Amino acid sequence: MAMSWHMMVEFEPPQLACVVSNANYSFGGLRAARECVIAIPASHLASLVVKVGNSSGCDTDKFAAFGLTKVPSASVKPFLIGECFANLECKVTDTRFVNKYNIFILAVLKAWINPAQQNRKTLHHHGYGKFVIDGRNIKLKSRAR
Amino acid sequence: MAMSWHMMVEFEPPQLACVVSNANYSFGGLRAARECVIAIPASHLASLVVKVGNSSGCDTDKFAAFGLTKVPSASVKPFLIGECFANLECKVTDTRFVNKYNIFILAVLKAWINPAQQNRKTLHHHGYGKFVIDGRNIKLKSRAR
Repeated sequence: MAMSWHMMVEFEPPQLACVVSNANYSFGGLRAARECVIAIPASHLASLVVKVGNSSGCDTDKFAAFGLTKVPSASVKPFLIGECFANLECKVTDTRFVNKYNIFILAVLKAWINPAQQNRKTLHHHGYGKFVIDGRNIKLKSRAR
Repeated sequence: MAMSWHMMVEFEPPQLACVVSNANYSFGGLRAARECVIAIPASHLASLVVKVGNSSGCDTDKFAAFGLTKVPSASVKPFLIGECFANLECKVTDTRFVNKYNIFILAVLKAWINPAQQNRKTLHHHGYGKFVIDGRNIKLKSRAR
């Protein structure tokens, strides 16, 4: 599925939260399997992301339909997506917020990056097919480092 | 404070989740007052954001120290920040995830935008003073609209 609502929760051990609507086919799968891969597409994959988001796993094998490459994960059953520059193998660690908010808490077990992929500009979803693409990087002096 | 971990949770009524570390001075204030304003700075305010993030309300009046403009809110006690192009008046509606995850659930009571501010490119925090600034906008055909 295409997912846009997510955030960091903790650095170490790395945790994320994400919202997967109970209207999505993936919701049942995620709740049952308690694991997933979060694959991060660069901007050149934008139209593919929309296609993935506008179809459903209930009647479509999205890997086959959209020509995506299944790459075996190290620690979870779901596949990594070969076309994505980063992939996070995740385990659902807390489902107490699912019924009320559709919020899943995820532990990141392993993170992959494809060093050969030069374009790492990410997509930010503004809704209804609108996205903004990462632009300029800046580095400011910060107390943190 | 400067905050970078947040996500949408629901469209209607609008809800957000955010992570505010219990190491931050703002944590106690947010938990006690149960309301806040999320002010969204455009990219030209990046160095100001870092200054706000690298100081603490425990010994600094940040509005005064950084020359920020206090604008009265309509429904909460905290001020809007006049320099930010968007301001969200929020109420904390659920603190059950605070102790374990520092996650606050927020209802957005009112959203303000400054139509006079042309630059609405936002900042995405990559950590340690690194940010990426919004670049190009794209619009793809989506089933949603």
